[in-house]
Amino acid sequence: MRILKPPIITLNFKCFLEATGDGAIRLSKIAEKVSSETGVSIVVCPQYTDIYRVSSLVDIPVFSQHVDPITPGSWTGHVLPEAVKAAGASGTLLNHSEFRLKLSDIEFALSRVNEVGLIALVCANNVKVASSLAYLKPWGVAVEPPELIGTGMAVSKVKPEVVSNAVSEVKKVSRDVLVFCGAGISTAEDAYIAFKLGVEGILLASAYVKAKDPELFLKSLCEASLKGL
Amino acid sequence: MRILKPPIITLNFKCFLEATGDGAIRLSKIAEKVSSETGVSIVVCPQYTDIYRVSSLVDIPVFSQHVDPITPGSWTGHVLPEAVKAAGASGTLLNHSEFRLKLSDIEFALSRVNEVGLIALVCANNVKVASSLAYLKPWGVAVEPPELIGTGMAVSKVKPEVVSNAVSEVKKVSRDVLVFCGAGISTAEDAYIAFKLGVEGILLASAYVKAKDPELFLKSLCEASLKGL
Amino acid sequence: MRILKPPIITLNFKCFLEATGDGAIRLSKIAEKVSSETGVSIVVCPQYTDIYRVSSLVDIPVFSQHVDPITPGSWTGHVLPEAVKAAGASGTLLNHSEFRLKLSDIEFALSRVNEVGLIALVCANNVKVASSLAYLKPWGVAVEPPELIGTGMAVSKVKPEVVSNAVSEVKKVSRDVLVFCGAGISTAEDAYIAFKLGVEGILLASAYVKAKDPELFLKSLCEASLKGL
Amino acid sequence: MRILKPPIITLNFKCFLEATGDGAIRLSKIAEKVSSETGVSIVVCPQYTDIYRVSSLVDIPVFSQHVDPITPGSWTGHVLPEAVKAAGASGTLLNHSEFRLKLSDIEFALSRVNEVGLIALVCANNVKVASSLAYLKPWGVAVEPPELIGTGMAVSKVKPEVVSNAVSEVKKVSRDVLVFCGAGISTAEDAYIAFKLGVEGILLASAYVKAKDPELFLKSLCEASLKGL
Repeated sequence: MRILKPPIITLNFKCFLEATGDGAIRLSKIAEKVSSETGVSIVVCPQYTDIYRVSSLVDIPVFSQHVDPITPGSWTGHVLPEAVKAAGASGTLLNHSEFRLKLSDIEFALSRVNEVGLIALVCANNVKVASSLAYLKPWGVAVEPPELIGTGMAVSKVKPEVVSNAVSEVKKVSRDVLVFCGAGISTAEDAYIAFKLGVEGILLASAYVKAKDPELFLKSLCEASLKGL
Repeated sequence: MRILKPPIITLNFKCFLEATGDGAIRLSKIAEKVSSETGVSIVVCPQYTDIYRVSSLVDIPVFSQHVDPITPGSWTGHVLPEAVKAAGASGTLLNHSEFRLKLSDIEFALSRVNEVGLIALVCANNVKVASSLAYLKPWGVAVEPPELIGTGMAVSKVKPEVVSNAVSEVKKVSRDVLVFCGAGISTAEDAYIAFKLGVEGILLASAYVKAKDPELFLKSLCEASLKGL
Repeated sequence: MRILKPPIITLNFKCFLEATGDGAIRLSKIAEKVSSETGVSIVVCPQYTDIYRVSSLVDIPVFSQHVDPITPGSWTGHVLPEAVKAAGASGTLLNHSEFRLKLSDIEFALSRVNEVGLIALVCANNVKVASSLAYLKPWGVAVEPPELIGTGMAVSKVKPEVVSNAVSEVKKVSRDVLVFCGAGISTAEDAYIAFKLGVEGILLASAYVKAKDPELFLKSLCEASLKGL
Repeated sequence: MRILKPPIITLNFKCFLEATGDGAIRLSKIAEKVSSETGVSIVVCPQYTDIYRVSSLVDIPVFSQHVDPITPGSWTGHVLPEAVKAAGASGTLLNHSEFRLKLSDIEFALSRVNEVGLIALVCANNVKVASSLAYLKPWGVAVEPPELIGTGMAVSKVKPEVVSNAVSEVKKVSRDVLVFCGAGISTAEDAYIAFKLGVEGILLASAYVKAKDPELFLKSLCEASLKGL
């Protein structure tokens, strides 16, 4: 895995059909190409079933979309951190607005993530929750007002104070925790503003997966991110 | 995929470390060998992250341990039926005692499973629930008293009436639904009795995954199953 | 408790502020009055915290909105069937679309409900689920397409086939299970059609709680129900 | 409501049959008597269905065992903060080990609790989680290692460092947040040690509810708490 350094662009493939199976490979290869051309750190988050194929075929960091707060054993249908790691992932999203977790489970999942050598980007719905999470010292915290996710109205444009407050509050708790923002980011300008506001990474999904020309879109995003940083 | 015909042996790999990553491959190859030697239908249920590798490398049916009741779209960390299918699975477990579902979700998951061309083995904790599930016409229903799972005390030996009642009640609702039993099955004799009691398949996990000699164990299970049928 | 006989009108108070605390008393007293004047069986379903007051003050059946599938013991924040009974309820809703349950939990909750001497009206999102539930022999099954709940578009008008199929399918499984319908019922005509389609009861919430004149509305509903039966 | 000042003894009635209905009244009256005799602040946490009766009959603070993170509206079977307040509660437990919540739900429930004029005692399974919760500024945080709950092995005796660390870490985040401990507290000595370690309150359940002589037990607890403070 390449070293991840800001600006970091995290691409969540969700359960979009365009990003399932062969689609996940295609979108990951484009991300690899753009990352290599622009020097920007890009992370892809395919579905569990695609982690192995993607991480075998591309040389950029692959994150799982979630891991369960469990140790190996009698768990049917669960997502074991060791399994995600064995499949080639180097990290995971956690507590995404589409998969919120109990606080005690976030804390235990983070301890498991550390134990098996993964890193975690934990999502928060607002600044208070982001600060509270920072206390658990994950690799990164992503603030994403859920009401903006998938709308195309970028948090960085519509609620810039959420982004800048998240940066200042999280850093107050711990300087080591990276701050991301997400929700609605869909243009190069949205990314530029986000990095201007102080984030170290952004998190997006449909804007990339559903882009007419994902390569062109991602390249413009990378350039804007570098400028905004 | 080979055609599945009774006796059917379903091996749930759960989140056991011995059955994760390379371990899943190893245990699946043994299952393939024993199935080919004995003619018994054997299904393996690896973790999501291992479905692609296993189904690429072995020629026996691979089931997912669960699928979510969703259509493609904005779901982070979920298990899309289409993704499981694309990874090479031909079916899935559903509603395992370690992953119980809401009734409305079982019904919708079953409609999705049909739609994408998978089959489902739905678990039930008792005869009443098994009959109620039969009404939804899944491929199979597995009755597994949760208090016996993982104990080594086989449902077929300790509670034979649960098994025979499950067979008669489920068949009353629909002759097409296959009846499985599970929980505690850990010897060839347990399997023999189960098939004698009328089931068409059995479901086991730790007894295979943790066997000292999985090949020897599975072979004896197959032979007993054929005799019991 | 008066004996409940069709037509049965079930009024779910949900967590509406108008139906909380003193509001629950007021709306229950109106229901009692209308029931006594029209002879129609009316059931009120206040919040847990209001069950005791309502059942102490009015002489119509009071249902809980839910009970948990538990026996007495170490459960914090749960809803013990015994507690609901002790507070004066004679029955409960179960598996409402706003509180869906796991199938195994519905089955166990129903056994507990019987054990403590309550009756249960179990909700279903479609005809298949209703039939599957009928197998568990609850007192009644209410079919409520969730997409119509709270819309004012009555299931009996918009999807009459759902109602008539629910009646015929549930009765095929068991003649003893009462069939209710709900979702969008908001006029006397909606109720009339529902009973014409064969249901024995209806389930409504906002149309009563938010009615300008709840007494007038409920009276018209009762008269239409008697005609439709 | 009397003013709550340390030492505070919180009695969780859970779903124990001895503490349901009339039992809740009896145990609350004893608590009221002991509180009045010793001057120690005692809080009782009956089931939802008993809040109204208890708070009408006794003059000590009554807490709910949980409230849902909701505003008034279409929620069936949920626990509306306004309803709990209207029934006479002055506060609530939140996130008990038997009712863990998602972090985003804790945050929203706390905002609702403030809004309706309740106070919240939020439970945490370890020191890290306690500190993270302190960031959300609840009235109090109770650290309770779940493996000790109901065992009779008191956290204050078996894991004193958990208690003293919880005190120091929570106070680092906010001096205003009260620190409680719970799990296994079953003798006067356990309570004495807990207060010696710096807590401002304790949380217990079965030791009181199942005591042979609850009045005698509670009195001894109060005296030890006063000495330990």
